[in-house]
This record gives sequence, structure tokens and C-alpha cells, in this order.
Amino acid sequence: MKFSLIAFISAALLYGTTGQAQDTIRITDYGYTAGSRQNAVPYVLKALNDCKTKKDPVLIFPAGRYDFWPQYVTEKLYYESNTDVIPLRRCPILIEGFNKLEINCNKADFIFHDRMQPFTIDSSKNITIRNVNIDWEIPLTAQAQIAEATDDYIDLVINAFESPYVIENNKLVFVGEGWKSEWWGSMEFDNNTKQVTSQTGDAGCMGDNFKNYKAIELKQGYVRLQYTGKHKPLKGNWLVLRHSARDHAGTFIINSRNVVIENMNLYHCAGLGILSQYSGDLYFKRVNVVPNAVKNRILSGHDDGMHFSNCNGQLTIDSCRFLSLMDDPVNVHGTSVRIMKKLSDTKLLCRFVHEQSIGFTWAREGETIGFIENEAMNTIDTGKVESFHLNSPEEFEISFSKPVPATIIEGDALENLTCTPDVLIKNSFFGSNRARGILISTPGKVIIENNVFESSGSAILIPGDANGWYESGAVKDVTIRNNVFNDLCLTSLYQFCEGIISIDPEIPRPDANKPFHRNIRIENNTFHPFDYPVLYAKSAAGLHFNNNTIIRSTRFQPFHYRKHMLTFEYCKTIEVANNQLQGDVPGKNIKLIATPKKELQLQKHQGIVLTE
Amino acid sequence: MKFSLIAFISAALLYGTTGQAQDTIRITDYGYTAGSRQNAVPYVLKALNDCKTKKDPVLIFPAGRYDFWPQYVTEKLYYESNTDVIPLRRCPILIEGFNKLEINCNKADFIFHDRMQPFTIDSSKNITIRNVNIDWEIPLTAQAQIAEATDDYIDLVINAFESPYVIENNKLVFVGEGWKSEWWGSMEFDNNTKQVTSQTGDAGCMGDNFKNYKAIELKQGYVRLQYTGKHKPLKGNWLVLRHSARDHAGTFIINSRNVVIENMNLYHCAGLGILSQYSGDLYFKRVNVVPNAVKNRILSGHDDGMHFSNCNGQLTIDSCRFLSLMDDPVNVHGTSVRIMKKLSDTKLLCRFVHEQSIGFTWAREGETIGFIENEAMNTIDTGKVESFHLNSPEEFEISFSKPVPATIIEGDALENLTCTPDVLIKNSFFGSNRARGILISTPGKVIIENNVFESSGSAILIPGDANGWYESGAVKDVTIRNNVFNDLCLTSLYQFCEGIISIDPEIPRPDANKPFHRNIRIENNTFHPFDYPVLYAKSAAGLHFNNNTIIRSTRFQPFHYRKHMLTFEYCKTIEVANNQLQGDVPGKNIKLIATPKKELQLQKHQGIVLTE
Repeated sequence: MKFSLIAFISAALLYGTTGQAQDTIRITDYGYTAGSRQNAVPYVLKALNDCKTKKDPVLIFPAGRYDFWPQYVTEKLYYESNTDVIPLRRCPILIEGFNKLEINCNKADFIFHDRMQPFTIDSSKNITIRNVNIDWEIPLTAQAQIAEATDDYIDLVINAFESPYVIENNKLVFVGEGWKSEWWGSMEFDNNTKQVTSQTGDAGCMGDNFKNYKAIELKQGYVRLQYTGKHKPLKGNWLVLRHSARDHAGTFIINSRNVVIENMNLYHCAGLGILSQYSGDLYFKRVNVVPNAVKNRILSGHDDGMHFSNCNGQLTIDSCRFLSLMDDPVNVHGTSVRIMKKLSDTKLLCRFVHEQSIGFTWAREGETIGFIENEAMNTIDTGKVESFHLNSPEEFEISFSKPVPATIIEGDALENLTCTPDVLIKNSFFGSNRARGILISTPGKVIIENNVFESSGSAILIPGDANGWYESGAVKDVTIRNNVFNDLCLTSLYQFCEGIISIDPEIPRPDANKPFHRNIRIENNTFHPFDYPVLYAKSAAGLHFNNNTIIRSTRFQPFHYRKHMLTFEYCKTIEVANNQLQGDVPGKNIKLIATPKKELQLQKHQGIVLTE
Repeated sequence: MKFSLIAFISAALLYGTTGQAQDTIRITDYGYTAGSRQNAVPYVLKALNDCKTKKDPVLIFPAGRYDFWPQYVTEKLYYESNTDVIPLRRCPILIEGFNKLEINCNKADFIFHDRMQPFTIDSSKNITIRNVNIDWEIPLTAQAQIAEATDDYIDLVINAFESPYVIENNKLVFVGEGWKSEWWGSMEFDNNTKQVTSQTGDAGCMGDNFKNYKAIELKQGYVRLQYTGKHKPLKGNWLVLRHSARDHAGTFIINSRNVVIENMNLYHCAGLGILSQYSGDLYFKRVNVVPNAVKNRILSGHDDGMHFSNCNGQLTIDSCRFLSLMDDPVNVHGTSVRIMKKLSDTKLLCRFVHEQSIGFTWAREGETIGFIENEAMNTIDTGKVESFHLNSPEEFEISFSKPVPATIIEGDALENLTCTPDVLIKNSFFGSNRARGILISTPGKVIIENNVFESSGSAILIPGDANGWYESGAVKDVTIRNNVFNDLCLTSLYQFCEGIISIDPEIPRPDANKPFHRNIRIENNTFHPFDYPVLYAKSAAGLHFNNNTIIRSTRFQPFHYRKHMLTFEYCKTIEVANNQLQGDVPGKNIKLIATPKKELQLQKHQGIVLTE
């Protein structure tokens, strides 16, 4: 009797209530031993099945190492945004159809093998994942240190334990757990700073002639690449060697709401880091997509850090870190589609345009759709969806409750305005990655505050297009405040990198009277430019660049083709006020292109001049 | 018209007839590319399914590398003889229910990952597998060279690419593709000869104290084992480091007939090499269980080479090689079972005794069973099976068409005399392995001819027991002729190694009047002994040791506890005639134990004396 009572009290103390205790499931109860190197997948399958029978399920992974191999994974058809289309995605941890679930991994190391998608959250709500490190035994990107660089060759030192390789037909080919893939591109990182080497980026760190290289293995882990040319990566520096396709996200969130991810170190993955799609109310705190320092890694994620496609509700990124990525840390956008045919007054045949973004259930009954003409890219009108039907992964029919505007014709575009989120990005670090820092294309309320940017390209890009990538859309309310933009920003050039902040929609014929973007406030930030372009803005109205401090850095030599601090093109209602310039800031000037002078309200005594 | 005719003639020339052409399936037709490192398993599944629809199916693997991973393997419950019992065996290539199939691999390399069973032939007939190399990327046994050996430690050099390891709790633990297993035993191989070092074997090459070792990694691939003691493996020599369980055969043949395996190099596997069980008419030509020289391997198979359990019909092993195995190259035996209870006059409750040999469908209606009393192990009588029923993997009920002999009691044994094969082993090489060369326990006709033996233990063991391993049974017709037994034979001691040829059944109370084994002819062989015991025989009748040449080797010092060239114990009708001795052959003598002198017919002038 006495013993039972003590047991009961102990349980109550441990779990708060016995009810909660019953809802807590430990993966080790299923026979898995952390560190055993066995495949954890079948144990996770059983545990998740049991979690589904609980009211408040909490799945616990005790600290330690968990290995995940393809055997027993759920293979599922998913059309994942900005990701290669493959028949089935491998989902070792599939959280599907849950109303509530917490997974607490207690800082466990989840080690993945071959190509797969660590976490998948599908058609679920109230999901929390916390305290987990995600890594690969053999990553899907490799790295090498430059042991020698001459006009005729460079020598690579590769950790062949981590990145086994073969030389085939004189080419360097990496081999892993169920795959083989040829090296196709590189990013150079400085040995001292572990940052992208200045003026390399998409300009190419390897030099012009490198595709003709001939690889020779001098000894295991030591590979000579013979090719001529003066431009070579620097001896001692590191190359991230890109190979393999982008086919699985690190975490994929689809058709889900109220998802919290906290304390996740995503050291590597097989594509986009966290891909959220048609989901909303997502909260990410201390999610770091960074190299695994313990493993002497330079490489981190395979592509983007966090990618949001057609989400809505509130997206929050708080206290996250992004470093050494091979693409943008954060990208928030919708998917616009091309109108192929007017099937009737109310019915359109449409097509997904970018080959990596197809097959979506793009709209649901009652959602609001914008009709965009594709010259100035103005939204002519909106309509309510009555029905949606996919004819194929590439094409769908959509009908509306009232006629489509008569001026909308084949070749114009649609944007789903219901699937657009509010965004808060704060207290985060955007380190030296390939490409930009944050891409924002949503009409929702956007706040970017208290972040530090060391992006090698533009820190923030506000794009918007229905002509190239078809990543909609126009912004309406963006605040960029209290951020620090360090002098690493814009040390390399990538697509659309026109300024540290680059507002650069792709618009065939911009209309200065009807700018595409609206209400962008850039306030109380500190910039450390070594080069001219701090801000470039095209087709924006209601643009405020106020109370910023701009401090000259002399760390790098200016090289950008833009020679103005601020450039406005096809813009309206611009305010530049109360900015402080320190040191010999390049240019200290403003250029207006296709923008009437009257649209610029330039406060005097800032030391900023308007050049003609 | 003309073109079609030419095409038809070409096809006819290529394939003999168009009918044959249609029956040929190439694995590459299913989209697999040799050398792609992709998992071949799903492609093989499809190809085998299609083969089943053909009349004369031939499955072709073009030359190259094929990788096999656990994903998509068929997992099946098999009770495999002399193998650990696990819930399901992984079968990447499952040939089940075929009436005919040829697989031609054109010398392809089949590379396996994790633990699995490369080929499984189940309930099939007329199966041919040819021209294939089987190996593991990360073998399930490791090897190391001794870089240093002192009284206080030895240093191991391990190829950590091939055999990744960790040090856990001071112990050396190997880690692989889905497994982790602690090192538990070693075999020492001479660096020059790559043969088992003399007087090590199961005596232990590591010395007495080694289990207390403390492992320290000095650098990657260089591990110091600290332990005291004078006996250590020799600097420069190699250790095969045994770890992991015996849970999958290299090829498993069950309930099948007419199986041909030709030109197979089995460089490694997860248990017994080729395990044939309740199958018959099996033909193995140029099947080599040997180290992969290209990979600088000392290790080869995990345990036995070819293991035959309860087979019948004709078994032929022709021109095969066995080297560096961790157990016997060839073992042919049945499984005897213990009588637990007489359930009626005609019905017995029986039990499998050895824990690795359970769960068999041990008998079928109409089969002949021998009743064995377990003192002198005489077969009292035989009976016909009427029914058989497994109560559990360990226990079964068997009933007979007539009453069981009254003298047969609980504790006695049964042997299935129908499941006993004829055996021909010729032109083969039995190199330096752990344990013996050939184990034979079958009443069928056995011929062992034109082979070379360099076994480290006994070259040939004729055991037979229903008390220990329960591997039946008595032999009735064995011819051992024209073989060469080199001086490597019996350089190490293992269980039952009483002579180069050791006839050593386990009989609690041998009866000299009713010997267990019968009719064993050892003729026209050449022996190169460095030590005394050439032949030891217990409980055998009709034993002929004639026309052999025995040539003294001085390569090693004699050490065996037996000091007689020939020893006969509880034997009858022995003939020793026309043997030639060259050099100072140790002993040149015969010892009789519990064997009347009149039973020995010793020809004079051979230089062989009978000691009292």
C-alpha cells in the first residue's frame, strides 16, 4: 500500500498528473538504444502510431545518437516547392493527421543516411519539435581545403571518411550511401573567417576554365585538379563542393497550422532546410542552419535555410542562425501561375511555370485570387475561387464566382492572396552564405528587426515576379528596423543583388504611377558599407529610409557597378530623413531613374546629395 | 520487309531461337545502371517477377558494380541451420517457387551493405547462378596489422575506411551500415604466407590476459591495446578481428533441387558461406570463398564455407577454393534430435538440441528415420514417418507407421536417414582457415579426391554425434584418395583435431563390436606431416589406410599430444598396407586403444610398427 502511494506521488511529481504521464511515450520503450547505430525508423513508426491514440502525446527521445536509414521509411508523393520533382519522398519521421504532438529530443543527434527528409509534418496542427540536432553521416555536399594553387592546377584535401569519392573519366565524383554524384560547383570560404571570399559568389571562385579540369588522385584524400588559368581559389581556403540534386527538405511542413520548432540545429539536409508550404502560424526559435563545428565542417545546408511557399497566418523566426548555406537563408513567397486559356467567363486554364514548383493544390473554394497583368504587373482585380481541379502536375482549371476581368488575357498571371502570411524575423544572424539573406514577397505585415546580416550578397531582397521564377508577389507593409548590416554584405554578386537592401521586382514595363511594391520602412538600422549601393528600389511607393546610421568600412575595395548609395527607379513617395553618415561613405548620393524628383522627400543636412 | 528479315536472322543468330531471346531479361532494361551506386534491390524484384512469367528465363546482369541496401529486401522467416535465430532474414535476391532460372552476372561485383543474405533459393528447381563476385562495402569482420607488440601492449593498424570503429568504455567496437558490434575474438595470419600462425588457432593468438585490454586510439586507424603478458601476436602479422553475429548465409538453398553455382567468388558474408538445407542434387564449381585480393583483404567469409544440413541426392564440389575462413570450409551433416517423451507406441515428442538448429520441418511422410540409442550410438532400427507436427520452433511430434522399438527410451535420439546425401569433393583447395577442412557425417557415398589441404586444424574430420552438436550421423562409405595434405595441416588445435584425418565421433560408451562408422578408405594420398598424428580413428569398422605416401616435413616443431602416426580406438577390421614413408616421419607407429590386435591387418615392410 505504502509503496504504491509513493510510486503514485513520484509519478505525479515527475509528470504533473498521471494523465500526462500516460501520454508520454519514450522511443526507448520500443527497444531502441541510442548509440546502437541501428535503424531507428521502425521504432519511430511504432511510437508515432501509439502517439496518435493519446490525447496530449509527448514523444521523448533520450539524448544520444539515432541513425535513420531508408529501410521502412514511408515513401510519399509530395510536390515540394522549389525542389526537384521526384516520384516519392522518403519520410523517416512522418507526422500526419495529428491534432497535437510534442517531440522532445533532449539534444539528441539524429544522423541520416542516403537521401531523405528528416521531419515531415502533413495535415497536422499544434505540433512542437524541440531540442534536436540533424546531421548526415555522409553529407550530400562535400568540402575540401586548397593545399596548393598554381596556374596549372589546384590540389584539394578531402576528408574521404566523410566524403568518399572516386575519379571517373578524369572527373571528381562523390559516392555515398546509395548514390553517386558528380561535383558541379563550388563556393570558396576564407580559411580565417570561414566567410565567402570576396568577389567570388556566383562569379565563380574556380576561374573560367575549370569545367575542363582533369582530376588525379595523388593519394587518398588528396586530389589534383589540372586546369589552366590565373584565377584560382586561394591556398589555405576552403571549397564547399556542390554535387547532388535538391530533392528532400530538412523539414517539410504542408497543410499544417500551429507548428513550433525550437532548438534545432540543422547541420545538413538534402535540399531546402525547412520548407513550409500551404501552412500557417509557424514559430521557429533558435533554429540554426549552420556547419557542425565538432566535425570541422565548413558546409551546412544543401540550399535555402527556411523556405515559405504559399503560407499564411503568422510566421515568426526568432533567434535563429544561418551560416554557410548554398542558397538564401529565408525566402517567403507565393507561387504565381500563368493563364494559358480562358475556358469561359469564369473559368481559366492555368499552368505552373517553374519546373521545381508544380503539382500544388494551388487554391481552395472561397480563397481570394489576384488577377495580374504581366506588363506593369498590376493586380487588376480579385476574385473568389469556386472550384479548382488539377489536370496534371503542370496544369489546372480554376473557376470563379464572378467573371474574370475582360482585360485579363492569356499570358497574364494569377496570385493566391489568401495564401500570404504576416512575417516577423527578429534577433537572428544571417551569416556568410551563398546568395542573399532574406527574400520577402508577401502582401502581409512584415517586420524584420534586431537582426545581424553578414550575407555575401544582398542582405534583404524584395523581388516579386510573374515572369521568371513566378515567386509572387507585391509587398504592402514592410518594416526593416534596428538591424545591423555588416561589411560582408554585398561582397559577392548574385541574381538581383542591386544593393545591401535590394527591392527588385522583375517587371517587363514598370509603371511609375502604379508601382508594384508599397509601404517599405527602413529605419534605425546600422549599415557598414565598403561599397556604394546601400539601397536599390524599383517600382515601389511609400518608401522610407529614415534614422539609419551608415558607417564606412574599408575592409574591401568597392567594385559594384552601381555608384550610388541610394537608387530609386520607377518609384513614388520616397522619404530619406534623419540618416547619419560616418566616415567616407561611398557616394553619399541618390540616383533617380524614371522617378520624378518631386517623389523624393530628401531631408537636408544628412550629407546625402541627389545626383542628376 | 528486307530489314525485318535481317533483324529476325540477327536475333536468331544471337539467341539461337527467338523463343530464347524473349526469355532473356537484362536488369539494365529496368533502368538500373551498373556502377550508379543505387540500390539494385527494387530492380531485381521486378526482374525476378518477370522471369517467373517466362518458360526458360535467363536473367542477365551486365558486368559492373551493383549495390544492395536493405530497403525493399524481402524479409522472411527462415530457420537456418547452425545460424543464429533471428525474427526475419533479409533477402535482396529471393528465388522462390521457380521451376527454372539462370542468372548470369558476367563477373559483376555485387556489393552488399548492412546485414543480409545475398542469394536465397527457396522451393525451386533447375537454378543456375554463375559469374558473380559477392562482397561487402563494410565487412562484418575486420582485420588489422600488428604495428608493434610489447609485453605491455600491441598496436593495431586498421583500415578505418573499410572497417570504421569507435572506442567505447576502452573497448574496440566496430560500426557499420546499421550496426555496431564489439570485437570478441581473433585469428592471427602470418604476414609472409597469409596462413594461420602455427599453434595459435583456438589456443588463442592474443595471449591469456587479452580480454582485460584497454584500447586507446593513437591516431585514426592506429589503435593501441594495452594488456600485459608475454604471449602476443607477432609484429607484422595480421589479425582477423571477429565481431558480429552469424545471422545470414551468403547463399541459402532450402527445399530446392538441381542447383548449380559456378564461378562465384564469395569474398564475404554475414554467416555461413553457402548453406544448403533440405535440398538435393547441388553442384558447385569454381565457387571460391577467399579474401578479395584487390582490397588487400586477409579476411574472407564470416564462418563456414559450404554447409550442408539434412540434404540428399548428389552434392558435388568441384574446383573450389577456401581460404581465411573463420570456420570449416565444408561441413556435411544431418540434424539428430532428442526423444523427450513417448507419447504412444508410435508417437514421439522430440526436441532440437542445438540452439542454432531449430524450427526445421525435420521430416515428411514416408521418410526413413533411424532410432539411435545414445550410449554406443547404435541405430537399433528404422521406421517410416506417418506424420510430423512442429509444436514450437524447439519441439515437434512425430508418428510412425509401426511401433517404435521398445528399447528406445527418452533421451535417445532420432536421425533422418532420407535426408542424407552422396558427396563428391574434388580438385579443390582447402587453404589456411580457422578450424578443419572437411567435416563429413552422412551414410551416403562419399568421395574426396584430388584435393589439396592446408587446413590449420585437421584436414578431414568424420565426427557424428547425438550428444553435443547433434550433427548426425554415421558414415558407411567414404573414400579419401589422391589428395595432398600439406604440412600446414594440424599446425593449430581445434575441437576434435586428433589427426590430419580425424575420425572422432562423440560416443559416451563406444562398443568395439558395433563401431559407429564403417567403410572408410584412405588411399593413394600424400601426407607431409611435421608432427605425429596422421590418422586418428575411433569406433570405425572397415578402415583402410593403403598406398599412401607420407613425407616428413621439418617446417614446424611437433607439439601434438598424440605421439603416434596412426591411432585406432574401439575399431574393427583395419587394414594398413602399401604405404610409403619418406624421411624421418614422426613415430612411424600405430597405437591401438580398446581395439584387439587381430582387428589390425598391418602389412610388413612399410616401416610402420605397432607399439604396445
